[in-house]
Amino acid sequence: MARVGIIGIGHAAFGRRSDATVQELAFEAFRAAMNDAGIGRSDIDASVIGSVPEYHKQRSLAGVVQEYLGLNPKPTWLTEVACASGCAAVRTGWMSIMAGVHRVVAIVGCQKMTELETPEILALMGRVGEVQWESIFGTTFPGYYAMFARRHMHEFGTTHEQMLSVAVKNHFYGAKNNYAMFRKEITIEKARDSDPVASPLQVFDCCANADGAACVILADEERAKALCKKPVIWLTGMGCATSSMSVLRRPNLVGLPSAQIAAAEAYEMAGVKPTDINVAEVHDCFTIAEIMACEDLGFCKKGDGGKLIADRQTYIGGKIPVNLDGGLKAKGHPVGATGVSMTVEIAKQLRGEAGERQVPNARIGLTHNVGGIGQYTFVQILRRE
Amino acid sequence: MARVGIIGIGHAAFGRRSDATVQELAFEAFRAAMNDAGIGRSDIDASVIGSVPEYHKQRSLAGVVQEYLGLNPKPTWLTEVACASGCAAVRTGWMSIMAGVHRVVAIVGCQKMTELETPEILALMGRVGEVQWESIFGTTFPGYYAMFARRHMHEFGTTHEQMLSVAVKNHFYGAKNNYAMFRKEITIEKARDSDPVASPLQVFDCCANADGAACVILADEERAKALCKKPVIWLTGMGCATSSMSVLRRPNLVGLPSAQIAAAEAYEMAGVKPTDINVAEVHDCFTIAEIMACEDLGFCKKGDGGKLIADRQTYIGGKIPVNLDGGLKAKGHPVGATGVSMTVEIAKQLRGEAGERQVPNARIGLTHNVGGIGQYTFVQILRRE
Repeated sequence: MARVGIIGIGHAAFGRRSDATVQELAFEAFRAAMNDAGIGRSDIDASVIGSVPEYHKQRSLAGVVQEYLGLNPKPTWLTEVACASGCAAVRTGWMSIMAGVHRVVAIVGCQKMTELETPEILALMGRVGEVQWESIFGTTFPGYYAMFARRHMHEFGTTHEQMLSVAVKNHFYGAKNNYAMFRKEITIEKARDSDPVASPLQVFDCCANADGAACVILADEERAKALCKKPVIWLTGMGCATSSMSVLRRPNLVGLPSAQIAAAEAYEMAGVKPTDINVAEVHDCFTIAEIMACEDLGFCKKGDGGKLIADRQTYIGGKIPVNLDGGLKAKGHPVGATGVSMTVEIAKQLRGEAGERQVPNARIGLTHNVGGIGQYTFVQILRRE
Repeated sequence: MARVGIIGIGHAAFGRRSDATVQELAFEAFRAAMNDAGIGRSDIDASVIGSVPEYHKQRSLAGVVQEYLGLNPKPTWLTEVACASGCAAVRTGWMSIMAGVHRVVAIVGCQKMTELETPEILALMGRVGEVQWESIFGTTFPGYYAMFARRHMHEFGTTHEQMLSVAVKNHFYGAKNNYAMFRKEITIEKARDSDPVASPLQVFDCCANADGAACVILADEERAKALCKKPVIWLTGMGCATSSMSVLRRPNLVGLPSAQIAAAEAYEMAGVKPTDINVAEVHDCFTIAEIMACEDLGFCKKGDGGKLIADRQTYIGGKIPVNLDGGLKAKGHPVGATGVSMTVEIAKQLRGEAGERQVPNARIGLTHNVGGIGQYTFVQILRRE
């Protein structure tokens, strides 16, 4: 089977970026990735943009970004699958290289979420839930994940304290990540004192909307080996699956079927088991989401996710270090950028470039990027030889 | 090189479809394509949705459509590149099969454009032009194409009567297409008497927003031959290129650079010349666009497009029959569906199933799908062996 490798990574700072338009954010990440790879525009055959385009005043976003990156007349396309748009971009870019259609492709996840007024963007995001039967009755994302949390507590005895411990961990690492939106550690007491959002979830259970961008440059094996001076990070397992829009039509509320199926597919393609993973980035849009993700990915049994964090097994030195860049929780969640940002972080970890957040000798890493409330999950397994 | 073939085609009627939601339109086309291919859902590995998602009240459209088609938990992704979203979906589906990742993929272009109020959708569409320097000053799509038309008249002596002749031809054929929005022939006098829009363009120079959907089912060579009882139509040339967002940064206003580059790429990949094409579908969002497309695709010299239609060379029996399904002009333009609809029509022509609109013995066909005002063009060359 042909191989596709990551030869360059770049990241723009996440947060309220009133200093930059969405195309400027994209360029910030793209330039960093080109410099990291040591290549120029002429080495790149195409780009893929991961974004939810409707949050920007300028529409036809791929065209704007492509021009701003200086990549005309090369091909581009934009992928949108809600909060998984970034990994959908990586996936289609990976396929374009596997197909032999392109050899070097820049994947740019970019999103400006502070361009629209907050009520407007919340109304739009609510419509990512199923409109006909659910969001019309007021169900928003915190509401959905509050239901997951309650059910998890009921079935497995998971505690809200365990969920808040996820936030404490992610802020602990986010404080060490220059690109993170929130670079302050928090205590469990502070988290416990935060405002309620949707019971049991409080402010510190929820990630924040952010502006941001991230970029990875992919290449086929020959080009990767010729161009890349750093260790190439190979995409060895690529899983993707879908679940119903409506949680009412799911078998249960304590996991995401799409995540379980995508993970199984990625593990099989990569020929590895959950215990082989040295470091993971998972989609912690809410603290309960990280707990469910650890279970869905097989890092522990279903129901044991709360215990995993309580036992500090997702810290460096634990069984499976998770979200060492701060996760969506502390890093911020610019929806289209998130999946690409996860890919950047895992590549950095596998190269051994993560500084004080580094997992020693990490060779195999995983990303888990969820769209909507699990309508889509993309799981990637990356490997350094 | 691996080959990818079309094994099923389906089309929903275009027009004001107040009877159906966007997912119902998608299903209408998908069911027709499955019946046409003689396959069931279990034969399909993934879907790709071509759409501009922001025109629907329900967001995260790919998830909604995937569930409504009954394809959970299989993978899906949505591509958005304005009015070329349909052919971007075909392209990424084609790549997924070329890559060996999927074997049979359903490509569904779907769009509901009458769900939002007209002023709202016009405001959104205006934002597909460059917001910073152009659409902010009132430039809308008819305005852009009016500039193209004026410049073409000035440089080449093209007449507005020639442009209106494009509309007469497209209504002539649209009247014979059961899926077309406008199924009435028009006279040149009627076109000439229509209301002005943006000088020189009048109402009959402009295509209409519409609701609609179309579907093609793609398969790798082995599956195509095993499943398909009808002649397989092969995707043999796939070109894609981009141009600047702003027309101010283009070399001239009498053609689309992206179309010229994408066409050259597609011809080279397919190993054919413009004179080898037996039938074409081009992006006639305005009558002048069809004239420029014929030139950009090499069906005549730059500047001779007006003469081509005046000489009736784009009718059946002429040098190169164009838009025999009525084109965007008479068929309607549900933006995300259009590129897939073009692919359906060419497959139908190459199979010899186009009835009274049939080009005799057509073996090689072409589609030309433009996004925005030429920010993207996708050119496909299809072939029946």
